[in-house]
Amino acid sequence: MMSELTIMAGPCAVENREQIRSTAEFLSGLGVKILRGGAFKPRTNPDDFQGLGEEGLKLLRAAADEFGMQVVTEVMDPREIELVSQYADILQVGSRNMHNGPFLKELCRQSKPILLKRGMSATIYEFLQAARYIEKEGNKNIWLCERGVRTFMDETRFTLNLGSIAVLKADSPYPLIVDPSHAAGKSAYVPAMAKGALAAGADGLLIEVHPKPTEALCDKEQALSFEEFSTLMKSL
Amino acid sequence: MMSELTIMAGPCAVENREQIRSTAEFLSGLGVKILRGGAFKPRTNPDDFQGLGEEGLKLLRAAADEFGMQVVTEVMDPREIELVSQYADILQVGSRNMHNGPFLKELCRQSKPILLKRGMSATIYEFLQAARYIEKEGNKNIWLCERGVRTFMDETRFTLNLGSIAVLKADSPYPLIVDPSHAAGKSAYVPAMAKGALAAGADGLLIEVHPKPTEALCDKEQALSFEEFSTLMKSL
Amino acid sequence: MMSELTIMAGPCAVENREQIRSTAEFLSGLGVKILRGGAFKPRTNPDDFQGLGEEGLKLLRAAADEFGMQVVTEVMDPREIELVSQYADILQVGSRNMHNGPFLKELCRQSKPILLKRGMSATIYEFLQAARYIEKEGNKNIWLCERGVRTFMDETRFTLNLGSIAVLKADSPYPLIVDPSHAAGKSAYVPAMAKGALAAGADGLLIEVHPKPTEALCDKEQALSFEEFSTLMKSL
Amino acid sequence: MMSELTIMAGPCAVENREQIRSTAEFLSGLGVKILRGGAFKPRTNPDDFQGLGEEGLKLLRAAADEFGMQVVTEVMDPREIELVSQYADILQVGSRNMHNGPFLKELCRQSKPILLKRGMSATIYEFLQAARYIEKEGNKNIWLCERGVRTFMDETRFTLNLGSIAVLKADSPYPLIVDPSHAAGKSAYVPAMAKGALAAGADGLLIEVHPKPTEALCDKEQALSFEEFSTLMKSL
Repeated sequence: MMSELTIMAGPCAVENREQIRSTAEFLSGLGVKILRGGAFKPRTNPDDFQGLGEEGLKLLRAAADEFGMQVVTEVMDPREIELVSQYADILQVGSRNMHNGPFLKELCRQSKPILLKRGMSATIYEFLQAARYIEKEGNKNIWLCERGVRTFMDETRFTLNLGSIAVLKADSPYPLIVDPSHAAGKSAYVPAMAKGALAAGADGLLIEVHPKPTEALCDKEQALSFEEFSTLMKSL
Repeated sequence: MMSELTIMAGPCAVENREQIRSTAEFLSGLGVKILRGGAFKPRTNPDDFQGLGEEGLKLLRAAADEFGMQVVTEVMDPREIELVSQYADILQVGSRNMHNGPFLKELCRQSKPILLKRGMSATIYEFLQAARYIEKEGNKNIWLCERGVRTFMDETRFTLNLGSIAVLKADSPYPLIVDPSHAAGKSAYVPAMAKGALAAGADGLLIEVHPKPTEALCDKEQALSFEEFSTLMKSL
Repeated sequence: MMSELTIMAGPCAVENREQIRSTAEFLSGLGVKILRGGAFKPRTNPDDFQGLGEEGLKLLRAAADEFGMQVVTEVMDPREIELVSQYADILQVGSRNMHNGPFLKELCRQSKPILLKRGMSATIYEFLQAARYIEKEGNKNIWLCERGVRTFMDETRFTLNLGSIAVLKADSPYPLIVDPSHAAGKSAYVPAMAKGALAAGADGLLIEVHPKPTEALCDKEQALSFEEFSTLMKSL
Repeated sequence: MMSELTIMAGPCAVENREQIRSTAEFLSGLGVKILRGGAFKPRTNPDDFQGLGEEGLKLLRAAADEFGMQVVTEVMDPREIELVSQYADILQVGSRNMHNGPFLKELCRQSKPILLKRGMSATIYEFLQAARYIEKEGNKNIWLCERGVRTFMDETRFTLNLGSIAVLKADSPYPLIVDPSHAAGKSAYVPAMAKGALAAGADGLLIEVHPKPTEALCDKEQALSFEEFSTLMKSL
């Protein structure tokens, strides 16, 4: 792994103490510095697991602290920015909130770095305007996250345009993280997409890793096992 | 106009007292019962006009009351639901918020009818799950609003699938309002799309009307003039 | 049915003498003047039924002649234009061939009317340029056929943009036929889409009808039964 | 350049003797073994330059022979397969013809290798079925070419899904060539996309190179200059 490469990894959702702790231990052993994990989960179906909430934040923070890592986690609600900020080093804006103006305006009032995910059908213009909302009151610490867009192609969950990576690197001032896990939707395709994204110029990756992917409470098909992630890291 | 047809019409944004009052006067004269108008405007570019806020709500309410109309207007922020509810009869959830779980959960805690607009790349499944979020604590008074989705076609602003209207009417229990104005993006195409939507089974229309479309502060290209709207209404 | 409405109906593929004869008898009884049926079938899978070829053309012509109908059928190969022209009154260019320049150039050398289907991801511009290829040597007798485009929406087989109908009627000089059968992909949605298309300004419809839809050799899910078609015709 | 990497390069269209000869000389000097160039050009607008035809094939063959290269060029018409085969080593099936069954069936009757480009909205399934058409009578020498699909994203000409590369390499037996030039539509984005495609597993690249891109008769914005191509090759 090149020293300037930013890897953010961890489970889709924080599920329990052992799951997030073992993941942090494993990742830190490979040199990963940023632990991801969802405590507030945006879900299409209201009956699906919605995350552990503040309890999840505490588990995430504890695991990261034990292994000297930083925490990136999603905040979904303008009323929870302060709460999430107590536990997170980087605040993630999910795809469903990229178009949410009042929320973006609120984020610009605090100083944590923001990982801004592209909306699932946002144009590049809209993506960069969302960054401008956050910057408007001075928070310039923004990382863009390309995670694919929705098209007719259904072999992968979302369509990860190599051209978007090229355009964002050429035409925007922000560092670019690529999320091959959500784009692929299937773990088998994640390594090839991760390597392609970096070769095209991405500054880092956001990758889902789970100790037991088949038992994951969300997005189980796209999470890499420890062994798969380890193999990927060696190949980068 | 058939008596069971629901027409919601008015400007994209409430701009000033005279604009909204004259629109309400005109619309009520044609038998339109529901006045639309934005006070909190979701905009892609943070420098664009963002609406008059509460002042806009007051102007909208006053115009509607003077001419015996109901008010439908967008609420964008979970912290403003109570405020907007003081002025509106129907709360509109915009496309950018259809995927916003915390906001939908908050809406279900109040009893006003909801006009739920489809996300700009939401599947039918996701659209109906968003309705389920709102229903979860008992608010069953939901109207779906199909406003087109984003595709490669750029002759119109969004792509208004006749099949979506057929599917939503056949497979969902909710009344369906169609917004041909946002889908078209150009006023010249609105009447044909409005007529097509109703013939395919839509229960009503949401249409942008402005006293002077060329001077509108937002979406000026898609607003019908009074004369154009009057012609459309006669043809329905 | 208004007298100026053009209805083209019949099975996806000509399968045998009885199938096409009974369909022609039924359709002519409802006033339908143009019989459709495929003899050369473009199929995605090379092992699928590819049509009866010239034998199919003969059966189609005989059925149409017996009941005083015209024939529209697809030609797929520049080398078969002459053959198909011996049996057909209108030559159909399928979606897969809309972008096929050499084929379009060949078509312009004969004088039969052309039913030009839109490519499955063609822009309006490309659609109209394809018509220009056909016109280039003088054949001005072109009908456009909007049959939907491919998008992420999979509740229907293709996405039939109401806006495309509005744009094509407003901005092109050609008569417009809409094919709700291929767009829907399911017979239950065809009537609503057919009605919507006509109300939006389409000049006619191309509809799949089969004596026994469940036994059809191709596209069985989208064909209307005689009873369903009869009901639709009464409602137009 | 790794020895197993397949690079096909050259201008969009053969324009004249000097243009194609100088390109071949330049490319062969960098170790490129396969010269591309169009003699029969599929164009959306019937008034655009349609290629030099057989004269173009002769110029292309002569240039390749002088510098010990192979020729890949598009054939568009089943009646011209024999003609093009006299000059080409590899026959290219363009995106517009991927769905053209009669043409694919004809191709399978000859033995030249085929470079099969993906249709501009073809699914992976349809792409692989098109390969099956060609294989049906024994021609197993097929290279797939991913060149992007059409979506709402218009910063690039087509959308080149990293996931498609991963899927095609994982799930199909064919070698995979990626065409970043058509996908990008702008030369500035081609190098990043080319590198990304190879890192994701592509077996080779098809790249447009022109001695004077600004004077090219087709697709001038996406052609690399000699200097740009040289820089790209060194970085692979």
